[in-house]
Amino acid sequence: MSKKVSEVGSSQVKISDAFWSQMQERVIDVVIPFQENVLNDEVPGVAKSHAIENFRIAAGLSQGEFYGMVFQDSDLAKWLEGVAYSLTVKPDAALEARADGIIEIIRKAQQPDGYLDTYFIVKEPEHRWQNLHECHELYCAGHMMEAGAAYFEATGKDSLLHVVERLADHIIGRFGPGEEMEHGIPGHQEVEIGLMKLYHVTGKEKYKEMARHFLEERGKNPDYFYEEKMKRGWQHWGQYSTEKLDVTYNQAHETVYEQQEAVGHAVRALYMYTAMADVAGTDGDERLYQACKTLWNNIVNQKLYITGGIGGNPEGEAFSGNYELPNDMAYAETCASIAMVFFAHRMLELEMDGSYADIMERELYNSTISGMQLDGKKYFYVNPLESEPGVSGKLFGYRHSLPVRPGWYACACCPPNLVRLVTSLGKYCWSESDSVIYSHLMIGQTAELEKAEIMLETTYPWEGKAVYSVVPKTEAEFTLAIHIPYYVDFEKEENCLSLNGEALDARKLLKKGYVYITRKWSAGDRISLQFPLEVRKVYANQHVREDAGCVALLRGPVVYCFEGADNDGLLQSLRIPRELRAIPYTCEEGILKGNVLLSIEGYRVVGSEKLYSEIPPVKEAAKITAIPYYAWANRGENQMRVWMLEE
Amino acid sequence: MSKKVSEVGSSQVKISDAFWSQMQERVIDVVIPFQENVLNDEVPGVAKSHAIENFRIAAGLSQGEFYGMVFQDSDLAKWLEGVAYSLTVKPDAALEARADGIIEIIRKAQQPDGYLDTYFIVKEPEHRWQNLHECHELYCAGHMMEAGAAYFEATGKDSLLHVVERLADHIIGRFGPGEEMEHGIPGHQEVEIGLMKLYHVTGKEKYKEMARHFLEERGKNPDYFYEEKMKRGWQHWGQYSTEKLDVTYNQAHETVYEQQEAVGHAVRALYMYTAMADVAGTDGDERLYQACKTLWNNIVNQKLYITGGIGGNPEGEAFSGNYELPNDMAYAETCASIAMVFFAHRMLELEMDGSYADIMERELYNSTISGMQLDGKKYFYVNPLESEPGVSGKLFGYRHSLPVRPGWYACACCPPNLVRLVTSLGKYCWSESDSVIYSHLMIGQTAELEKAEIMLETTYPWEGKAVYSVVPKTEAEFTLAIHIPYYVDFEKEENCLSLNGEALDARKLLKKGYVYITRKWSAGDRISLQFPLEVRKVYANQHVREDAGCVALLRGPVVYCFEGADNDGLLQSLRIPRELRAIPYTCEEGILKGNVLLSIEGYRVVGSEKLYSEIPPVKEAAKITAIPYYAWANRGENQMRVWMLEE
Repeated sequence: MSKKVSEVGSSQVKISDAFWSQMQERVIDVVIPFQENVLNDEVPGVAKSHAIENFRIAAGLSQGEFYGMVFQDSDLAKWLEGVAYSLTVKPDAALEARADGIIEIIRKAQQPDGYLDTYFIVKEPEHRWQNLHECHELYCAGHMMEAGAAYFEATGKDSLLHVVERLADHIIGRFGPGEEMEHGIPGHQEVEIGLMKLYHVTGKEKYKEMARHFLEERGKNPDYFYEEKMKRGWQHWGQYSTEKLDVTYNQAHETVYEQQEAVGHAVRALYMYTAMADVAGTDGDERLYQACKTLWNNIVNQKLYITGGIGGNPEGEAFSGNYELPNDMAYAETCASIAMVFFAHRMLELEMDGSYADIMERELYNSTISGMQLDGKKYFYVNPLESEPGVSGKLFGYRHSLPVRPGWYACACCPPNLVRLVTSLGKYCWSESDSVIYSHLMIGQTAELEKAEIMLETTYPWEGKAVYSVVPKTEAEFTLAIHIPYYVDFEKEENCLSLNGEALDARKLLKKGYVYITRKWSAGDRISLQFPLEVRKVYANQHVREDAGCVALLRGPVVYCFEGADNDGLLQSLRIPRELRAIPYTCEEGILKGNVLLSIEGYRVVGSEKLYSEIPPVKEAAKITAIPYYAWANRGENQMRVWMLEE
Repeated sequence: MSKKVSEVGSSQVKISDAFWSQMQERVIDVVIPFQENVLNDEVPGVAKSHAIENFRIAAGLSQGEFYGMVFQDSDLAKWLEGVAYSLTVKPDAALEARADGIIEIIRKAQQPDGYLDTYFIVKEPEHRWQNLHECHELYCAGHMMEAGAAYFEATGKDSLLHVVERLADHIIGRFGPGEEMEHGIPGHQEVEIGLMKLYHVTGKEKYKEMARHFLEERGKNPDYFYEEKMKRGWQHWGQYSTEKLDVTYNQAHETVYEQQEAVGHAVRALYMYTAMADVAGTDGDERLYQACKTLWNNIVNQKLYITGGIGGNPEGEAFSGNYELPNDMAYAETCASIAMVFFAHRMLELEMDGSYADIMERELYNSTISGMQLDGKKYFYVNPLESEPGVSGKLFGYRHSLPVRPGWYACACCPPNLVRLVTSLGKYCWSESDSVIYSHLMIGQTAELEKAEIMLETTYPWEGKAVYSVVPKTEAEFTLAIHIPYYVDFEKEENCLSLNGEALDARKLLKKGYVYITRKWSAGDRISLQFPLEVRKVYANQHVREDAGCVALLRGPVVYCFEGADNDGLLQSLRIPRELRAIPYTCEEGILKGNVLLSIEGYRVVGSEKLYSEIPPVKEAAKITAIPYYAWANRGENQMRVWMLEE
């Protein structure tokens, strides 16, 4: 491995896609303004944010006390990052002016030494950098760095970039490998990603080296957080105790090279893995890359829900054991799935293997966007694969697993994360090397790449059709490599690839999930890809006890689920036949309009009215409807299942 | 309904049964002495009990502080009750002398006004009777009353009986319906049962009336506990708050006549229902009986595990919603199943319907005795129907569900409850009315009844054979009514009933689960009952989502389960064939020696190594072994399931 490709910025891409354009509109028109109002404490009935006011107080522009979570600053940082991407999708001078104003407040809040964290500036200046384990200073810094880099890339304005560079320099002045330096590591990984973004934007090695240091330092002393606690003698959350800490939660139990299994808080883990892959690619670091592969493989082979969700253990929003993937108790946080997109994207840059793009697709079409109501107004943090009215959100063990999306949360992590993912979608579509343009995702758009302008027209994910129209910018030969989803089999005749209407032998061109088409391109060259989207029945590994006897249905990248609303309830009594007869159709009306649903000729099992009976239940023919998983819980509280018994 | 039968005391019965005699031996030889040592603080490594010492301190015989739970007294009471029954099974003069000595300490601890609760006597005398909600004074009193009644019945000694009569009189002097009386109700029901036992022993109406009062008062003012809290201004457990209380947990949300659903803490509920049925029968109270039936029907039709377990919600050791019966997360407390025996037994006295005896059997052979390791040395409080190493007892949601029985608990509720159940088993075998002797359970024994001495010889539950040898004590005609388990069908030829070798037409004699044989009996008359024990496949109601697609296997009253140890692990990949071929065989060696196991010709499903795959798993023939549920987890930590997928 080595990183031979360069990133494509989201500003190089204009999405124009039946599926994604409306998602982008919703986050830009609904979520960003809503969050702006929240940050300004202007939404009645929503827990006060105070995030901007905290910066005003820190800047001396306002009087008052800090209010909010210790990581409240990150809400503003994430919003600014989302705004930056949104301006590349849909310019908005007024929004940009307001963002500039906020950035000015942030600039004024920064301390003369570069320090920037309003909680400690306002509330506990004497306690700076003493509780990396719980107090999220580095986490907030990382998000502000991401915002600064994104805002610079989107607008060319470097005010926030300068702020975060000064902040990064402050951190570099304090932490590092030398004996005279502090050997702290963040309690919640994120600064590593922020530093790498600074590096990518500025080219300054010191930021990459600092990111690498935080990664290398992690787990070297598994007692670091404990020693830190003993030294400072106080705790931010919970009662002070002298007990040792379980740092598997923070992935600080071993060095990143020693970690064989994805454990602990899923978002922390994935942010770390993403930064590891970024550093590995940037430095061509084979050892770090192997560490990434080990963790990647553990996730995708043992710990990934079919929807792309990760985190089978609601306690600590964490990974569970291998194959321990409870459906109704799943955590599968929206943010963790978003972070899986980041990780997959970085892995793809290291190794052009379609399996990474396949996972990116799985995340994008399922457990990321399931976090948002179809109208963009409400959000799930937790994305279960089974929901039961009266149980989910109510009973012990299931209280985290809400049956319908609530409104804004006090801890606003997932909605802004969705904003930045959806508005920066262009980033994940392409990579470019000296001689190859890689297309990872079939999303309709026009992309201004180095070697060509490419227009991609597609009806994916509802149809397996894509046309790439290429206008080269060079006369030299180059390659267009197009990701072919794992379920497309070119041995089947109906699947085809053509150049300007003439069939290509895709089997020969296919290598690790990409077809490579090399030529001297002429303006107007068109690559067409076509494959019918079959409904696929998927079985889980026998070790997954929760899915025993069950199947899940997929079509293209879309995972389907079953809701009580469409199926007269009692989903557990429905059976998917071994010989599947499923007819896809486009929903013509209602909330699900435009989605492809499935009509399945299945069975319902009808048994005795008694609680227990020796009379075998009988099968009756039943028409079963499946809807895309991401669209569940848009029609009120009702039963939902992804995995269905087969018979 | 009306109670037309009288109770049969455990001292009238001598158990001599291949299955139960060894259970009795174990609790008498292992559990009672062990608990005695614990109560005397003589077991190293076990949490200090201090229960006897608390009484010594209260009696002024020792100096020190109270130690233990606020309901620590009940541990001693339950032990004494168990000792009483054990003396009827196996006389032991030394044990009896020690018990007498302890009773003398209790007598001395009782206050001049009859009050008896060492926590309040020693620690907070000013707080007596102020916190009925949390402080268990009435609960402890109830257990002491049960002990006093049992000890009197077993030994004829009335010292403890006098103590608890004085205690009951003290309670009667304080609580009651009049305006001048306090309208308190117990936070944990039990005193109602204790008072009824006092009534049955002494015949004094006032005790029954007091029991009835506590039942009638319950739920009349659903805010009683809240008002009590506001009045006293302190809380025993947790922080004081002015919040309202959820009294569904204590079944105090409605009157007993209004309660339609079994809710809240299962043991509290069942103790209440048991007392309700007892009072209903004693008074011939049709309305109270109907209230019992409503609750009984809700349990057996919607809330009962196939094993007899109750309590699908580990939070609050409580009933869950209708049909919400999670297998791996089940609470199914041993004590709650024991209390189901009490309730069933009282219902049976009200209505001679075999379905109550069937439930009694289900409890006795499954989720009660599953609480005890086969050697009697370790105990389960929680009796799940599925257990998963690495998950059960470890992860969030499953921490209560231990995969192997631990030793003695600080809160010693279940083991002593098992002691008293197993040592008093004779009680549950018979009822006697003016003209009928009812046999409820096929347990080998000699019973000294009013109208006859009956010897019952049987190989149940492993074989469907029982012989009743009758030696009448009267020359008058009377009826022997024998419970026929619900699964025995006399339409089938192989099932038969005979008198002195001559076949009886059981179909004609059968009424609501009992065959009624009326005659002038002669010494040596023998009734033989014979039926082959088929392995039965049972399906759960379709509303039970956890059991969808699954079957459970039963043979006679014994529910079977499957352990990883016998089946090469991965139980979820095993399939029970629709056409069951199961061969019962007696285990000849090892820990399970003497148990009938099942050998099943089934399948194992083998699928892809991948986490998700479109390749359908293939079925391979597999020999599957099932063992009696009660005997699970006797061979170390391993997987267990009761419900298995059928295919």
